[in-house]
Amino acid sequence: MTINAGLEGIVVAETDLSLVDGKNGYLVYRGNWAKDLAISRTYEDVVHLLWRGHLPDERESEAFRAELAARRKLPDYLKTIIRALPPETDTMSVLRTATSAIGDRSFAWPPTFEQASEILAKAPTIIAYRNALNTGRDPIEPDESLGHAENYLYMLHGEKPTRVHTRALDAYIILTAEHGLNASTFTGRVITSTRSDIASAITGAIGALKGPLHGGAPSEVDTMLEEIGTKENAEPWLRQQIEAGERLMGFGHRVYKTMDPRAVALRQVSDSFAGEDPWFDLSVHVEETAVRLLSEYKPGRNLYPNVEFWAAAVLRGVRIPTDLYTPTFGLARMAGWSAHILEQADKNRLIRPESTYVGEMPKAS
Amino acid sequence: MTINAGLEGIVVAETDLSLVDGKNGYLVYRGNWAKDLAISRTYEDVVHLLWRGHLPDERESEAFRAELAARRKLPDYLKTIIRALPPETDTMSVLRTATSAIGDRSFAWPPTFEQASEILAKAPTIIAYRNALNTGRDPIEPDESLGHAENYLYMLHGEKPTRVHTRALDAYIILTAEHGLNASTFTGRVITSTRSDIASAITGAIGALKGPLHGGAPSEVDTMLEEIGTKENAEPWLRQQIEAGERLMGFGHRVYKTMDPRAVALRQVSDSFAGEDPWFDLSVHVEETAVRLLSEYKPGRNLYPNVEFWAAAVLRGVRIPTDLYTPTFGLARMAGWSAHILEQADKNRLIRPESTYVGEMPKAS
Repeated sequence: MTINAGLEGIVVAETDLSLVDGKNGYLVYRGNWAKDLAISRTYEDVVHLLWRGHLPDERESEAFRAELAARRKLPDYLKTIIRALPPETDTMSVLRTATSAIGDRSFAWPPTFEQASEILAKAPTIIAYRNALNTGRDPIEPDESLGHAENYLYMLHGEKPTRVHTRALDAYIILTAEHGLNASTFTGRVITSTRSDIASAITGAIGALKGPLHGGAPSEVDTMLEEIGTKENAEPWLRQQIEAGERLMGFGHRVYKTMDPRAVALRQVSDSFAGEDPWFDLSVHVEETAVRLLSEYKPGRNLYPNVEFWAAAVLRGVRIPTDLYTPTFGLARMAGWSAHILEQADKNRLIRPESTYVGEMPKAS
Repeated sequence: MTINAGLEGIVVAETDLSLVDGKNGYLVYRGNWAKDLAISRTYEDVVHLLWRGHLPDERESEAFRAELAARRKLPDYLKTIIRALPPETDTMSVLRTATSAIGDRSFAWPPTFEQASEILAKAPTIIAYRNALNTGRDPIEPDESLGHAENYLYMLHGEKPTRVHTRALDAYIILTAEHGLNASTFTGRVITSTRSDIASAITGAIGALKGPLHGGAPSEVDTMLEEIGTKENAEPWLRQQIEAGERLMGFGHRVYKTMDPRAVALRQVSDSFAGEDPWFDLSVHVEETAVRLLSEYKPGRNLYPNVEFWAAAVLRGVRIPTDLYTPTFGLARMAGWSAHILEQADKNRLIRPESTYVGEMPKAS
């Protein structure tokens, strides 16, 4: 009997949503290169593409932006819940609980675009609201006139972000919006397959993304860059790390054997920071040095910077606090989760694998 | 390429926890017949068996009962959250949100017995607390001197249940405590496989159980029995239903092709109600009549009463309100979920299947 403990190579679904091709470094969202979308489109447009199947025209784009914007505000009961959670509750757990609290009897089968919008629109507000409480500031109400990325930065910082920062965050949340049947998306599809509701499915997905084997530990890249500190220190620091047998945070990926296309795109976007932020200069230098040293010490291993490396560079560039890296990844992935949940519901089949019992048998029947 | 949309026949895990053998009608928990445990043991003893690998001796049994009992009380912040959820929030959603709200930074990898106890012990209190608010009564604090099943009935009804009711509910929650890799348990294992925490994993599992394809619609058996109303009406009502091509609620199961061993055991336990409750007399009569008519109309289909049929009979017998049937199933299954989460963590591997892209490709790279 074959035990498929990781379900590697087991195809659970046909999907119209995305192609993740690690060999060629392709990432396609419904017939579009994700990297092109990251440069030319807003997050809302990409959500429209993933959910509705086509890129919106100008009128659709504005209508959808406005619809999401109108759903951002948190009702009072949700604020009460976010306030009630004890200080030792991390932000991913806050997002999980608040998302669950959105789900009520109106979230009955089948999942709808409206329900998906309701959850996706509120995620940035939930994170920013709790962050304000955590840091002793008054929470800032969302501004309906701003885009999804812009408004998130506005709520976090209390001032409208620069165009460059908005574009950089938009690129990040577009490039992490969807990525096939990763563990969190798969969780959402399994929950949906029981004909449960989309609030349950996304709550479960948040729980899965919370695990470091999936959501990662992007703050560790931050720590690495901080420890390196200066360009001059990069090569000696990295050499010492590699020679000590330590893993370099932010390099290598289970699926991509060439450079992660999300990393390629984020690197490109990050160039816009070059003059503005010494952090970016350092990031580029560390990346180049690490790639050179890795091919020197581990030839043939193809260890490229992954999306976590550039995620940390971009998120720090737009001044998102380290403890919000994974929650920000989560608010981005809401697009893909919802798209998969809608697709699963459309041609549903209960997902129910098997286990094999290897324990003892009782004496008699 | 094979698409395994339902993962049927795909074995994801070796488990020491249970054997579900539909052909022979076997249900085994770690070397013990579940039906024997249902008659001879308390729920707490079965939780001990599933988590710790052996049935407790007298001293262990009392220590574990007391440990769980001491964890039942809800902290004030959790009461605030349960109170804050709007009236249109169903009880499964309340249980999902409150369970999520228990998870904080102390729930770090790996999952522990203490964390599992914390969640399992509070589930009945969460349900009873919200039920009191829903029905305009003052919530009743848990009584540490009572067992898990007994205290749940006490909190729901405000008076100590009879020994028969306690035993009947104990049997029900023992027989539904664990059932292999069903969709909710699998959800818990997928979430755990990312090294996320047990609060995330159980929150996700609750969301999956909420779906009627998994958690079922046991209240529909109630409705059926209520519509039938009297023994005399059973045969004409059932004949008419079958001839109209309607499905009989509570008969047939995807896995068991013989009588569900849980149903056998619950039927046996239900006998203790016979003299006390005309509802039970009716249930037995309807079951017998339905089985006779199904074999007359659909020979060879082996349609037996499933666990939902007897669940409805028992849960109504112990006066649990219909809208708490699925939440009560959930509090029972906490045992199996936690056991699988602990087992998954013990020999962990990220669960990450694949999808295949069937959409369009972009023009050029």
